[in-house]
Amino acid sequence: MHQTIQSVSIIGAGNVASQLAQVLAGSGVNILSVTSKSNTSAQALADSLRCEMIADVNDLPPSDLVLVCVGDDAIDDVINQIPSQLSVAYTSGSVEIKSIPQRDNLGVFYPLQTFSKTRTVEFFEVPFLIEANNTHFAQALFDLAWKISRNVQFMNSEQRKKIHVGAVMVNNFTNHLVYLADQYFKENELDWKILEPLLKETLAKLDHTSPYDAQTGPARRSDQEIIEKHLQMLDGNTKEIYQIISESILKTYSNKKST
Amino acid sequence: MHQTIQSVSIIGAGNVASQLAQVLAGSGVNILSVTSKSNTSAQALADSLRCEMIADVNDLPPSDLVLVCVGDDAIDDVINQIPSQLSVAYTSGSVEIKSIPQRDNLGVFYPLQTFSKTRTVEFFEVPFLIEANNTHFAQALFDLAWKISRNVQFMNSEQRKKIHVGAVMVNNFTNHLVYLADQYFKENELDWKILEPLLKETLAKLDHTSPYDAQTGPARRSDQEIIEKHLQMLDGNTKEIYQIISESILKTYSNKKST
Repeated sequence: MHQTIQSVSIIGAGNVASQLAQVLAGSGVNILSVTSKSNTSAQALADSLRCEMIADVNDLPPSDLVLVCVGDDAIDDVINQIPSQLSVAYTSGSVEIKSIPQRDNLGVFYPLQTFSKTRTVEFFEVPFLIEANNTHFAQALFDLAWKISRNVQFMNSEQRKKIHVGAVMVNNFTNHLVYLADQYFKENELDWKILEPLLKETLAKLDHTSPYDAQTGPARRSDQEIIEKHLQMLDGNTKEIYQIISESILKTYSNKKST
Repeated sequence: MHQTIQSVSIIGAGNVASQLAQVLAGSGVNILSVTSKSNTSAQALADSLRCEMIADVNDLPPSDLVLVCVGDDAIDDVINQIPSQLSVAYTSGSVEIKSIPQRDNLGVFYPLQTFSKTRTVEFFEVPFLIEANNTHFAQALFDLAWKISRNVQFMNSEQRKKIHVGAVMVNNFTNHLVYLADQYFKENELDWKILEPLLKETLAKLDHTSPYDAQTGPARRSDQEIIEKHLQMLDGNTKEIYQIISESILKTYSNKKST
């Protein structure tokens, strides 16, 4: 007997909760209710979804799934309070399934994407990483993700944690490099937007070139003179980060040459 | 009297030389010759452009411009050998115009982009940074760039050097972060390509959100527990870079909160 998730209660009212709820509703899933520590946010999201706001998880209606979209440090607590007969999945990249108190159906429904208020994500390309404490429920979560994305994969907690580390590096850290460049440019009355075509090309190149082969720049060429000049133009965190990444690039290519 | 650059000799036969020569030729500029320290590379590029290979810069034909597309450390030497009556521009982000022996027409024609063999750049969006030792020649270089790009700006050597620092940070360093993630993934039998939609979204978000507001992730949330977990999963350069960028993000947001 194949299980299909047709009705979902949402816990959380932040960026992940609201974008997931909207896209699931748009794909025909019945969103029954929204619960959040902030009743105001929960009510606003419930209104936009035309569903109920439920203040207390003990009052959750019967549903095929309770989708817990809260911060990593709250997941354990929140799931503990959800009546044990309900099926639950959470949306975290880092929290291991074995760290959560077990119940009949417990799973992970992790969208590997950055969510923010200012932008609606195109879900179709978003990788969904699925895990559950039993294969039937895992398949049901897979099918639910497949309604909104064409990139759904089973991943265990160990793999998902490693992917999350990589996600932090390519998303959070790239964004911070742009922030540091932006600060440096502002101090010098320049606009970082002049770098946007370059950043776009950086990515476009990686579509068909390995990051090892795509590397260019002073550290790639072992051009110590330029690196030294650049370091003299920088200070604080930016200087430190410039130095340590340049050293890592130098090391990457000098190691390979000698092998 | 308005000067128009209609004929160009190319010095260099690397990625910048060959892509610039091709796109200039495509826009109707007459490419007269190619010269490079490697006669084989010069001949190959000259063949593809259906122009002459000239082994010695002393034999360069009369032209409106000699475009020097060689590595930063060779620019000074190469320009020194070019007959003094010829107008010269070079394509470097970092070399100051005052460091080059003067002549009547000396300028900079810097495309702010990453060039590699495996990919043909769309020049139309590439910012060109223009500088010259006189306004007539600066305008002539500006007009030449305008034939192939809609993003041409006058920038002095100081500004260009600063922009180059930013370019290294957003291009070279982002690429290296992807490389490190790729290495980490390979060690764990994962494919970094799963991160590509995330990296695309990182950029798309920056189109209309400041990098300060776009920041997400454990360091942005001051989630020390996750940062600590991630550090335990990493080693070597990757661990060091994870730590130093996380600290920089933490500092960025704790500073701002207290003001």
